[in-house]
Amino acid sequence: MPDWQKYLDDNQTRFLEELFDYLRIPSVSSLTENTGDVARAAEWVRDRFDSAGIENVEIMPTGGHPVVYGDWLHAPGGPTVLIYGHFDVQPADPFELWTSPPFEPEIRNSRIYARGASDDKGNSLIPVLAAEALLKTTGRLPVNVKFFFEGQEEIGSPQLPPFMEEYSAKLACDLVISADGGQFGEEQPGLFIAFKGLCAVQIDVTGPDRDLHSGLCGGAVQNPIHALASILESLHGGDGNITVDGFYDPVVPLSESDRRQIAEVPHDDENYKRWVGVDELFGETGYTTIERAWARPTLELNGIWGGFQGEGMKTVLPSEAHAKITCRLVPDQDPGLIVEAITRHVTDHTPAGARVAVTQLVGSASPYLMPADHPGNIVAAEVLTELYGTAPYHVRSGGSLPICSFFRDILGVYSLNFAFGLEDEDTHSPNEFFRLASFEKGQRAYVMLLEKLAKRGL
Amino acid sequence: MPDWQKYLDDNQTRFLEELFDYLRIPSVSSLTENTGDVARAAEWVRDRFDSAGIENVEIMPTGGHPVVYGDWLHAPGGPTVLIYGHFDVQPADPFELWTSPPFEPEIRNSRIYARGASDDKGNSLIPVLAAEALLKTTGRLPVNVKFFFEGQEEIGSPQLPPFMEEYSAKLACDLVISADGGQFGEEQPGLFIAFKGLCAVQIDVTGPDRDLHSGLCGGAVQNPIHALASILESLHGGDGNITVDGFYDPVVPLSESDRRQIAEVPHDDENYKRWVGVDELFGETGYTTIERAWARPTLELNGIWGGFQGEGMKTVLPSEAHAKITCRLVPDQDPGLIVEAITRHVTDHTPAGARVAVTQLVGSASPYLMPADHPGNIVAAEVLTELYGTAPYHVRSGGSLPICSFFRDILGVYSLNFAFGLEDEDTHSPNEFFRLASFEKGQRAYVMLLEKLAKRGL
Repeated sequence: MPDWQKYLDDNQTRFLEELFDYLRIPSVSSLTENTGDVARAAEWVRDRFDSAGIENVEIMPTGGHPVVYGDWLHAPGGPTVLIYGHFDVQPADPFELWTSPPFEPEIRNSRIYARGASDDKGNSLIPVLAAEALLKTTGRLPVNVKFFFEGQEEIGSPQLPPFMEEYSAKLACDLVISADGGQFGEEQPGLFIAFKGLCAVQIDVTGPDRDLHSGLCGGAVQNPIHALASILESLHGGDGNITVDGFYDPVVPLSESDRRQIAEVPHDDENYKRWVGVDELFGETGYTTIERAWARPTLELNGIWGGFQGEGMKTVLPSEAHAKITCRLVPDQDPGLIVEAITRHVTDHTPAGARVAVTQLVGSASPYLMPADHPGNIVAAEVLTELYGTAPYHVRSGGSLPICSFFRDILGVYSLNFAFGLEDEDTHSPNEFFRLASFEKGQRAYVMLLEKLAKRGL
Repeated sequence: MPDWQKYLDDNQTRFLEELFDYLRIPSVSSLTENTGDVARAAEWVRDRFDSAGIENVEIMPTGGHPVVYGDWLHAPGGPTVLIYGHFDVQPADPFELWTSPPFEPEIRNSRIYARGASDDKGNSLIPVLAAEALLKTTGRLPVNVKFFFEGQEEIGSPQLPPFMEEYSAKLACDLVISADGGQFGEEQPGLFIAFKGLCAVQIDVTGPDRDLHSGLCGGAVQNPIHALASILESLHGGDGNITVDGFYDPVVPLSESDRRQIAEVPHDDENYKRWVGVDELFGETGYTTIERAWARPTLELNGIWGGFQGEGMKTVLPSEAHAKITCRLVPDQDPGLIVEAITRHVTDHTPAGARVAVTQLVGSASPYLMPADHPGNIVAAEVLTELYGTAPYHVRSGGSLPICSFFRDILGVYSLNFAFGLEDEDTHSPNEFFRLASFEKGQRAYVMLLEKLAKRGL
């Protein structure tokens, strides 16, 4: 057994206690009230980098939630990798659906339950622990490593692009390794080669200047909820396709080989239905479930509200109605142009007697696709094959990692997605969890990856 | 000046202080948390009946919010009238839109601002004060009077029909006089001869068994908000007509004389737009604004909710979406049959991949129409002509008074609507108010009405 492996084994209890401390910080980046908690999480990461033996550690302001940077650059002539993670989390509501409170981590059934356990506190702590094991046992790392953890991933990293422009020399590297994402299954590794792009809008419909009596005024004026329903209904065809003019125009059609590659990955609609808890699947006709989820663009309503939502009846004709929408994009859709197309569509489909405003919400990302035969993917595939005893699938995700597009566009490098979450871990839902087994296996995997990258080069 | 008039003049300050005490009780009948406040309001009414000199006063349980009864029956051979009012109020939210708090009454610009000031605490206190003035100055009332105040009007008086069946002998009368409603204008009286019926449903759409990640699962399953929007959009045609199969079948078409009577009442669309705060009116084609509001059935969305409603973006595909609907009905629509028709329509229009439930909400009423030449209307018209110097219009209301249908169906009598609210008083909105002038004029009007009823008989 190598010394680093013994070090990892000897320290798992401490690592887990540390992860619990980290998870107790409710670092929800989208809520103003949690801004201070995001800052506390940054301080926790800074201190943890320090104690791991990482050098030049600092919290760097971005104008929004901060970045934590650290490095170890004593492998002259070797490749330089930048390891990416994030310390912010999704909101935890609805709180009442959590079995244990979202910010009081608890182990049940060899799983750590907490908001951020998988996405991304558990996952992003892994490479720090791998680096610590190597530094404490060998005094060095096999390659030059820069750590770059951010606090605004869950809101689309709005301040990161200008930040990365400004510090492009400091962040320069041969490859980004992202510790945000996951594997295909407990026994089956996967390399995620694609993430969808993202854009979000809010639609605000206004009618009368105050809530009216539904009897006295009903029938005389447009009802903002009726108007909003009409607008939202118009965004999709009955067969699940999106009817926004121009929405599909830039989409690169799936090639036969794309579809074969996707079809090679085992998938069972019946299992999927059980997993999400529906009787019936639904979506764009002409595509398999997994093609729709991984490789076709979507337009989903995230929330809707207006008028009376309390107990019983209130006979009111409301003044306002609102909805939030996110689109997931595929190459070569542009988030800004999609927002423009939606805005035009909504304006064109607003019923008489209602006023409407469309506002782009903070957070957008271009779609991202990394060649399966990139040297980083090849080395990672070797590590995963050795650890799991089987070669990884090359899979795509319907989720978004805006940061991958930023790294590609600003630093000119691809991002190898090397993380250990699994798709059933309810990362944006109540009862998010992370497997203890993934936490430990990931630490070994990162040590092996750094060692192999040193041998092969980039 | 008659003694009763002097008594009213001398006691206005006290009456107003008493009304303020009454308005401070947040007797919201639709909210469980306010059940105790509705009971407190009943006690307040009981004590006020007592102090006015009304006899046989008692709070009577109904199984829901209680009734307060009292009478004065010492006019043998004279007609018997039952005066109706209600001591419950609408919810006050959204609280932040009130200039002064809804349950802390305040006089501004000769108006009393508070939830319930007009609907119906201010209005229903008026006949009690009129009776007190007569009893304290003449020792008697001109006719036999029963007072019947209830606490569940704003939720459609669900327990009243069985209660009235049980106590039909105690409540027997020649005419009901309802102190819930209003006049046409400050200078122009009106007799309300029609109220719309009412029924209410909630639509609950469920999709996945929990909120899902909009990236991982978007496009693969039906989105409950999309499904709800599609259902709601299907309820109306683009020209504002209701597309529920069978909805219009029982509607008695407006006759030429109905339309003439309505057209005689002055109305200006530009003023109406300014009043409700819209740029454009909207509704069923082929009918004037006032025909739509007064005499055509409506289906209005009162509220909608589902998914994420907070600040910023949350990339979630929600598990549920909900909407509340109230319909206002005209002769001869039946509330129960309309709920059945809506339920069938919703079931038939539920998109693939969504489950839907339609639940009738508590509170329904049959449509009501009282002949304009009923003796009660004739006497009331004389009083109003004398007080205002001009004859009343015969008008209809888009609002509902379920109790009028109950009195007609159970006690076999019509309800004369004799009250002093005005349509601009935001009765179900923030900043509800009641005019001081209406409060005082109403007291005189009630004394005159009782005296004239004694002379003319019924």
